[in-house]
Amino acid sequence: MNEQYISSVVKAVLEEIKNTGSAHAGGHVCKCKKHRMTLEAANALIGKVMTKADQMGVRAVVAVSDQAGRPVSVQSMDGAYIASFDIALNKSFTSASLKMSTEALSHLSQPGQSLYGIQFTNGGKIVIFGGGEVLEAEGKVIGALGVSGGTAKQDTELAAYGREVFKEVIECL
Amino acid sequence: MNEQYISSVVKAVLEEIKNTGSAHAGGHVCKCKKHRMTLEAANALIGKVMTKADQMGVRAVVAVSDQAGRPVSVQSMDGAYIASFDIALNKSFTSASLKMSTEALSHLSQPGQSLYGIQFTNGGKIVIFGGGEVLEAEGKVIGALGVSGGTAKQDTELAAYGREVFKEVIECL
Amino acid sequence: MNEQYISSVVKAVLEEIKNTGSAHAGGHVCKCKKHRMTLEAANALIGKVMTKADQMGVRAVVAVSDQAGRPVSVQSMDGAYIASFDIALNKSFTSASLKMSTEALSHLSQPGQSLYGIQFTNGGKIVIFGGGEVLEAEGKVIGALGVSGGTAKQDTELAAYGREVFKEVIECL
Amino acid sequence: MNEQYISSVVKAVLEEIKNTGSAHAGGHVCKCKKHRMTLEAANALIGKVMTKADQMGVRAVVAVSDQAGRPVSVQSMDGAYIASFDIALNKSFTSASLKMSTEALSHLSQPGQSLYGIQFTNGGKIVIFGGGEVLEAEGKVIGALGVSGGTAKQDTELAAYGREVFKEVIECL
Repeated sequence: MNEQYISSVVKAVLEEIKNTGSAHAGGHVCKCKKHRMTLEAANALIGKVMTKADQMGVRAVVAVSDQAGRPVSVQSMDGAYIASFDIALNKSFTSASLKMSTEALSHLSQPGQSLYGIQFTNGGKIVIFGGGEVLEAEGKVIGALGVSGGTAKQDTELAAYGREVFKEVIECL
Repeated sequence: MNEQYISSVVKAVLEEIKNTGSAHAGGHVCKCKKHRMTLEAANALIGKVMTKADQMGVRAVVAVSDQAGRPVSVQSMDGAYIASFDIALNKSFTSASLKMSTEALSHLSQPGQSLYGIQFTNGGKIVIFGGGEVLEAEGKVIGALGVSGGTAKQDTELAAYGREVFKEVIECL
Repeated sequence: MNEQYISSVVKAVLEEIKNTGSAHAGGHVCKCKKHRMTLEAANALIGKVMTKADQMGVRAVVAVSDQAGRPVSVQSMDGAYIASFDIALNKSFTSASLKMSTEALSHLSQPGQSLYGIQFTNGGKIVIFGGGEVLEAEGKVIGALGVSGGTAKQDTELAAYGREVFKEVIECL
Repeated sequence: MNEQYISSVVKAVLEEIKNTGSAHAGGHVCKCKKHRMTLEAANALIGKVMTKADQMGVRAVVAVSDQAGRPVSVQSMDGAYIASFDIALNKSFTSASLKMSTEALSHLSQPGQSLYGIQFTNGGKIVIFGGGEVLEAEGKVIGALGVSGGTAKQDTELAAYGREVFKEVIECL
């Protein structure tokens, strides 16, 4: 590590601060954007979930889709499981397309339960264990979050955290 | 927030870096990290390509994969075509797995040319029009970039731009 | 944007610097070859597993993939089941992409367990019965092994044997 | 090779002779084995093709299938293209299933030619550029070879070499 490297880090930090700052200047809050998922909101949310995952020692893939279940941003932390890319992506699809968490779906899809067999209905895109959550703005589902990389319990916790923290994200943009 | 505050934060960062520097000393700079794709590098590159796309009026999906063709980060600009997600992802797979740009492949895969028909060989994951490029660090392919959203010409231009600018990205991390 | 956010950015930068620093310290020569799967190592391992399979009266397909789940060598003993080719290949993908044996996964994916349904998440490439194992060198996963052809119990035994014997293989190359 | 291995080979030969013995009596050695692909023959051929590829500076994936187009052995030289695994595998399938080289097929499948469109008929498994060849024993197709990793011209040359050299391989086993 040398001064050049430190300098580049500092520049990156300043750039980050400037970019974030200028994008939200002015003091007035535009409400149009809140009714649909944006890349900016998705990336901000992914950043927060990854910070939390890092604290928990989980290397996660985090995916955010829009209301239609279309992927907006999918990012893989260094060292995450390879299988987690598809799983995180499909968790966000599942939650967007069924408007429920995959944790809730995990109970409904057990043998003997009402949605048993649903994992076969959508070409392998329905995930029936925790880690997927809907994302809301002003009480309306505008997208979904998929987290994969830890245990099912950790993924569920991270997704629930993401759902909560999304409220702050969407307020600040 | 004002400049004074930012300045104090930066100073604190520098101080912290200096203090922790001795723990990782040796003076030598390990170049290992540059030999593999990281999420940090992928996201920095995607940011630069999207800025360029924005200037060109293109709403693109930009994908970065590692050397093995596994996706590291895939992001969709607001309003990008839905189909572009798979195309960008597959362009990055194509360039990583064949170690050439999809623009170069587009010529080799024409009727009568040597690789005519290659788009059918890998389960629909080979793309034979421009927008995919390899990403190099110190002369070695460490990943690939896929851009989709504009015309083939625009995607090709954006991918070529990304390949060039990646040199700066990887140097600064 | 508030002080808390800036503070979190700064902390993340510091964390990154710390992690990078400690990971590459020491100045010792990297034993690169042992850290990645080679065709030579894969074939040597397959030979040993097939000798064992022969003793057990099993006609197996044995697959070895690298760390990224990409196949390095897949070989079918004379008279092996045709279906075993895809199964062995997918077992090695499963173990590489989830960094666990498919035997361990078989328990986690039962109805009511935490990963029930995971066999549908990756386009049919996740196998949830025994016969897949990770392959390690110096404590690091560098690939995976998939065995198919006997009963689940026999495949599991052969894969576990392969995991153990790989230590000798990698030492001798 | 050790005594255990020799012993197992001898036992296998005795078993084979016993099983087929009555049909071919008279004390002469049964040549049945040459009429079908074996793992031993496949691996011997792959070794020879790889030696040649190495001399040409090509990092190839080499696949050998049986008469039914089922893979017997598929091996990837270190540093081969990721896409080459599927391509080599599918080239061997193509040549086995159509009993011609993929180079010959490349002419027949051009727009306006008799087999134009054949690449769509078998779920993406038909390859229409050079690198696939049939493998014969005593004038009968008993399998096929697929080579991928160089230019189409290099792959074609390597496959043709493999077809020729297979005669020696099959004689010596």
